Amino acid sequence: MVKVGVVGSTGYAGAELVRILAGHKNVELTVLTSRQYANIQFSNVFPSMAGIVHLECEEMSMDNLCEKADVLFLALPHKIPMQIVPNFLKRGKKIIDLSADFRLKNAFTYERYYQPHCAKELLDKAVYGLCEVYKDKIKNTDFIANPGCYPTSVLLPLIPLIKAKMIDVKTIVVDSKSGVSGAGRSLSLTTHFCEVNESLKAYKVTKHRHKPEMEEILSCVVETDIKITFVPHLIPMTRGMYTTIYARLAQKLDFNDIQNCISEYYYNRPFIRICPENIQPDTRNVKGTNFCDIGLAIDDTNNCLVLMSAIDNLVKGAAGQAVQNMNIMLGFDETVGLMNASAPI
Amino acid sequence: MVKVGVVGSTGYAGAELVRILAGHKNVELTVLTSRQYANIQFSNVFPSMAGIVHLECEEMSMDNLCEKADVLFLALPHKIPMQIVPNFLKRGKKIIDLSADFRLKNAFTYERYYQPHCAKELLDKAVYGLCEVYKDKIKNTDFIANPGCYPTSVLLPLIPLIKAKMIDVKTIVVDSKSGVSGAGRSLSLTTHFCEVNESLKAYKVTKHRHKPEMEEILSCVVETDIKITFVPHLIPMTRGMYTTIYARLAQKLDFNDIQNCISEYYYNRPFIRICPENIQPDTRNVKGTNFCDIGLAIDDTNNCLVLMSAIDNLVKGAAGQAVQNMNIMLGFDETVGLMNASAPI
Amino acid sequence: MVKVGVVGSTGYAGAELVRILAGHKNVELTVLTSRQYANIQFSNVFPSMAGIVHLECEEMSMDNLCEKADVLFLALPHKIPMQIVPNFLKRGKKIIDLSADFRLKNAFTYERYYQPHCAKELLDKAVYGLCEVYKDKIKNTDFIANPGCYPTSVLLPLIPLIKAKMIDVKTIVVDSKSGVSGAGRSLSLTTHFCEVNESLKAYKVTKHRHKPEMEEILSCVVETDIKITFVPHLIPMTRGMYTTIYARLAQKLDFNDIQNCISEYYYNRPFIRICPENIQPDTRNVKGTNFCDIGLAIDDTNNCLVLMSAIDNLVKGAAGQAVQNMNIMLGFDETVGLMNASAPI
Amino acid sequence: MVKVGVVGSTGYAGAELVRILAGHKNVELTVLTSRQYANIQFSNVFPSMAGIVHLECEEMSMDNLCEKADVLFLALPHKIPMQIVPNFLKRGKKIIDLSADFRLKNAFTYERYYQPHCAKELLDKAVYGLCEVYKDKIKNTDFIANPGCYPTSVLLPLIPLIKAKMIDVKTIVVDSKSGVSGAGRSLSLTTHFCEVNESLKAYKVTKHRHKPEMEEILSCVVETDIKITFVPHLIPMTRGMYTTIYARLAQKLDFNDIQNCISEYYYNRPFIRICPENIQPDTRNVKGTNFCDIGLAIDDTNNCLVLMSAIDNLVKGAAGQAVQNMNIMLGFDETVGLMNASAPI
Repeated sequence: MVKVGVVGSTGYAGAELVRILAGHKNVELTVLTSRQYANIQFSNVFPSMAGIVHLECEEMSMDNLCEKADVLFLALPHKIPMQIVPNFLKRGKKIIDLSADFRLKNAFTYERYYQPHCAKELLDKAVYGLCEVYKDKIKNTDFIANPGCYPTSVLLPLIPLIKAKMIDVKTIVVDSKSGVSGAGRSLSLTTHFCEVNESLKAYKVTKHRHKPEMEEILSCVVETDIKITFVPHLIPMTRGMYTTIYARLAQKLDFNDIQNCISEYYYNRPFIRICPENIQPDTRNVKGTNFCDIGLAIDDTNNCLVLMSAIDNLVKGAAGQAVQNMNIMLGFDETVGLMNASAPI
Repeated sequence: MVKVGVVGSTGYAGAELVRILAGHKNVELTVLTSRQYANIQFSNVFPSMAGIVHLECEEMSMDNLCEKADVLFLALPHKIPMQIVPNFLKRGKKIIDLSADFRLKNAFTYERYYQPHCAKELLDKAVYGLCEVYKDKIKNTDFIANPGCYPTSVLLPLIPLIKAKMIDVKTIVVDSKSGVSGAGRSLSLTTHFCEVNESLKAYKVTKHRHKPEMEEILSCVVETDIKITFVPHLIPMTRGMYTTIYARLAQKLDFNDIQNCISEYYYNRPFIRICPENIQPDTRNVKGTNFCDIGLAIDDTNNCLVLMSAIDNLVKGAAGQAVQNMNIMLGFDETVGLMNASAPI
Repeated sequence: MVKVGVVGSTGYAGAELVRILAGHKNVELTVLTSRQYANIQFSNVFPSMAGIVHLECEEMSMDNLCEKADVLFLALPHKIPMQIVPNFLKRGKKIIDLSADFRLKNAFTYERYYQPHCAKELLDKAVYGLCEVYKDKIKNTDFIANPGCYPTSVLLPLIPLIKAKMIDVKTIVVDSKSGVSGAGRSLSLTTHFCEVNESLKAYKVTKHRHKPEMEEILSCVVETDIKITFVPHLIPMTRGMYTTIYARLAQKLDFNDIQNCISEYYYNRPFIRICPENIQPDTRNVKGTNFCDIGLAIDDTNNCLVLMSAIDNLVKGAAGQAVQNMNIMLGFDETVGLMNASAPI
Repeated sequence: MVKVGVVGSTGYAGAELVRILAGHKNVELTVLTSRQYANIQFSNVFPSMAGIVHLECEEMSMDNLCEKADVLFLALPHKIPMQIVPNFLKRGKKIIDLSADFRLKNAFTYERYYQPHCAKELLDKAVYGLCEVYKDKIKNTDFIANPGCYPTSVLLPLIPLIKAKMIDVKTIVVDSKSGVSGAGRSLSLTTHFCEVNESLKAYKVTKHRHKPEMEEILSCVVETDIKITFVPHLIPMTRGMYTTIYARLAQKLDFNDIQNCISEYYYNRPFIRICPENIQPDTRNVKGTNFCDIGLAIDDTNNCLVLMSAIDNLVKGAAGQAVQNMNIMLGFDETVGLMNASAPI
């Protein structure tokens, strides 16, 4: 049993990590930290875990964490991980960081969208943990920058097609829809039930921080500078992320061409499911799971491709992919602890 | 008091017409029909109307309707209106048809997307009731084809800009999101609470019947053939429609250029509200009202314009716009009965 | 036109007052205060009011308020009204206070459940504004303590029956269910969308502050000390309050006996609607309205009466009843500005 | 691996059985039937199961079922199981019936609330599968009548206390609240999203079929005739059942007395969790799980006990308890396949 800890365990991504790791047969949860709930039973903060998780939340302490765990998941606000990761790595710990601190290779971009970076020397060392694309690199690292939820939902359907030069990369439009849990557990009018329920709106239009993350990976994949249009929307549901991508086809192609391209790229990858023609993904089908369901359609009248992807923003978009990354790093089957189905409703 | 009737009063659009007309100071509701609930008090079908609406639903009968009302709203399934409208018009009635039967001028397109048309000779007579665009024609007709909900949400923000040649009409992508009431009151698994709640999916991708309606109007406005990409999505909320439109700008333009173009086009039109920079529309703000809120943003990195519109699909997208059409036809102020605010939550 | 002001206009009850008063033909809204949003356009805080309300929020100032308005609605947190009401009354203003500060006649009870009271001398002067029960007193006062939402939903169905001695007052059990807006607009984990959505729980079991309010009124009505059991529950919907009341019948009675008793008591009162046998109230039918729908059933096997009531907690449970109180005080028809129907869905 | 089949696998309880059994390490799912979806891949009906369940739905055939499985779960509408169970039992199959057909021992009561019964001779043979109460009987039978959802939520908190004679059984009032999935997957206006969302209502007041089921078990437990008052309510959420029970205490008792009584009765039963004082159960904490969370409070002013229970109506209220029954029948640990935590949100 590998000893693992969750640093920042009482936010939504952290709590979801605890839930998944508590049911993982190859690891033992040994330490949970929480600034806000230090010295309180984790199951008092999340009574759904009563009878299942018996740990108490602790203040974050480098020595304590290093003593108790060999793999550490960091589910902390941006800015904190870059301050502590160097130390963890020096002590030989394996790190999976769910924040944005090490996702971008380009420090300049990071500093423009976030804040000054104090551990730039590690940017190149961090492996971008998009499991279905970078599995080989993930196997051979001890430091993962876990992808953002929007980028996961955008990159998985797009990468096979841009690699195959099937679409005109200058025409990519991304319209994403996210459940409210993506905004985290901290309080704001934006997440007040009465303000969100029976409501729908776009936010951070063209300015969301995940846009440069997608652009950097896409540009890297095809070795050319790609700019996309990206608009996220807030949807009155707790979990789920739906992304609709529009792009002109680079040539005349039909449904089968596109579907085959994606299927072959993800051959034997258990968490990618491709929908048959005329069936679209639905966030309901991936809720609580690590699946990414992908659908597609072609508008013949203007040679436009429509790609759709559905993930659970807290699982494939955060905690689930983090555990998948751990599985790959540690040489486990990548599905351990993650192969549950979503409830039928 | 003008005598008005609602034919098909127990579907959602019909019932919403009843609600609005019951509070309209210049008209008297004199007859309601319903096939399913004939001979039942309307307020037994919709107890929310108890104490307010005292009519009984009746079977549809041409003579009865013509005797009791001078203006008739048809809230019927497609295919029925084309069978009865000719007769109503012959008898001198004013007709506002909420179905798609007379929206398209091109009978060939209608028959491709719907079914054979049996009153083609009236297609040219019907005025497309997009109030803010065709007010003059509406004033001078007695037969309105009330626009579809998606087209209303798409055409209102787009028309001023394509008229001003500000956008490249070959690049229009429309991503719409609709509440469940758009699917109507009839039963299907698609509208079962448990199947929709906490769910999000695209449907009829590139194939929705409202696409040719938008394309015909847009093409007519600029006198050139326009094809758009259109994907509707089903959202877990009862009411509300949100449309996000993407298009390349035809030249370098900034926020003010676009905003001024739309503002000037809709000068003094009370139901169009344009959001300030960095504020986006929200369906919550238009719920239960006849407003169309419009927002916009420009992505400088690729000269892409993002337009957003929010309407209530049952009001500005159906019953409200129908009443606005009546107001204009009858020479009333166009806001009579429609100037309520949405609840704050 | 009577000049009215709303003190505390940007909480949910305050904003709902603004919405209703903006559509009231006999009054002019002249002043809105808000501590948090002072000097900001009200319609920037609530964009749903854009084009309808053109006032700016102001800091609360006694002189300013008294100068601009003759009737003042106080939608403030408990404790503030008792500090300012004496002054308003001295200056001859009519006051409708939506807080709990003057609802209880018994200062001792108030101080046990709330805090020390600094204007006890006014407790007897305030009229408890349960419109359908205390209309005569309301007509002749200038100072209303507007009832709490739970008490309104409990007292309206119960009072006719306890007056008629039809139920055993020692056996009253009240199980109430409230939408989330009852918790107000301030931020807490309790109202975070993700914590409330798809969730249901009881809270403040047997200890809610509205319990003594109900008990005082019930006891006063029958001039005997009544204790009830009261459990409120939080429901994942924005608005609506549903109360189910259980009590043993004092004698053998049937549906008609009970229904007649309630109907007669509320004869000609437009906001009380009594459901036919086997039809139950539904919060959906009263949403956004001032109606209180009442249903009832008798369990023959144990002579137990079940009463059900549905109100909109922000309208009949707060802002709507406040306006109804104003109408009665000022000698208007009590329905002015309040006679809209709920939307069919 | 024990071979199991689900008869009626495409209703909500059936599909939930499939989901749970697909992750159960001691059984193999070998056959699924569905009248409506015969010859269709189960994962086409429920795409959430794609990649996990690979069976095709079949028409129900006695021979086929008996050949392929040793344990059969019947998730069928009432009336069908009584026609087929005798045959299954004759062929030596183990049966867990989720319908009401064999829950009541009293055929007269069954026939009054349901329809004529054609297998009365088996009523005494069926064991009522309330696992925490009848474990010993369950171990020694091959025929389980799985309890209804409402009865499960009512009986678990009540039985320890009425056995201990702590409450006055003549005063029991049960107010239950259920998510919409309790109404099943078939179509009706009652489950139309727009009719349920933002709505709350009582239904089948005092007349619900689960009332006699509770009364029979309660009466049997204390060997005296018990009548309760029972009102179920429909809540706008997919899953979850919350029951609030009111009863007078038979003597003066405090929180600890009650809590100890329940704790001792359920000592070492992993699916019963009792909340600490002043903490109430929440359906969110049991969603997707087999837990029953129980809370309690005492109203000193009138010696009234309030019990609250939260279950997932499709798991502990149906499919989960069915699998727990199978585990007990087959001698497995009762938690196999059922020990997952609910998601934190």
